[in-house]
Amino acid sequence: MPSAPLPPHIVDFLRGPNPAVIASNRPDGQPVSVATWYLLEDDRHILVNMDASRRRLKYLEQDPRVSLTVLGKDWYQHVSVQGSVVLTPDPDKMGIDRISSHYTGNAYPDRKNPRVDGLIAIESWHGWHVKG
Amino acid sequence: MPSAPLPPHIVDFLRGPNPAVIASNRPDGQPVSVATWYLLEDDRHILVNMDASRRRLKYLEQDPRVSLTVLGKDWYQHVSVQGSVVLTPDPDKMGIDRISSHYTGNAYPDRKNPRVDGLIAIESWHGWHVKG
Repeated sequence: MPSAPLPPHIVDFLRGPNPAVIASNRPDGQPVSVATWYLLEDDRHILVNMDASRRRLKYLEQDPRVSLTVLGKDWYQHVSVQGSVVLTPDPDKMGIDRISSHYTGNAYPDRKNPRVDGLIAIESWHGWHVKG
Repeated sequence: MPSAPLPPHIVDFLRGPNPAVIASNRPDGQPVSVATWYLLEDDRHILVNMDASRRRLKYLEQDPRVSLTVLGKDWYQHVSVQGSVVLTPDPDKMGIDRISSHYTGNAYPDRKNPRVDGLIAIESWHGWHVKG
């Protein structure tokens, strides 16, 4: 798989508010995947955001390696990136509001539950049928 | 997460030709995810199928644990299952043709490259906003 930084045509693809799935490992090494919103920050970084109560956060502190697959408009276009995530609290909801606005046009409706930013440092990527 | 078998409302959801992403591990434990077609076989089994040249197949022989996330029609509906995959050759393309017909209505167009069936034995699952 090619290494970061992402080339411009992959950056363009990832800029959209696309459906995505993130995978990480449980402590026993079982992969676990879940649908997620994401926001491309630049050609080396993608932001995700999680409810602070998620068990996944504890697992990511132990093993920060993740894979994110982003789906395009048809069955054939998709991009996957691998990297490690750095977790930081999102006390004022700035992170989740940026991501929510990108997908829905609005701030995140739940103002109560604590959130955590996860900044993925992209190490490798692979694109299928995304043309340069 | 609840254990298999899947309850009827999750079975109903997974019956559709939905977008999906499968995650497995590289030998170093780095999760890798990729878009995939899938076919629900019954309330404990999901079929996927891969090109026999994929490096992922070698990795799955070493560590057969996978996670599959299936997306619904909006941002909120999704189902994820975890389990282990059993790989068997698909010499007559029966597996990939069943899956391709489910998604496209047609047999798989590439008759040349060898394919491999992966039957996921579901161990646990979780559904978001999929009503029973």
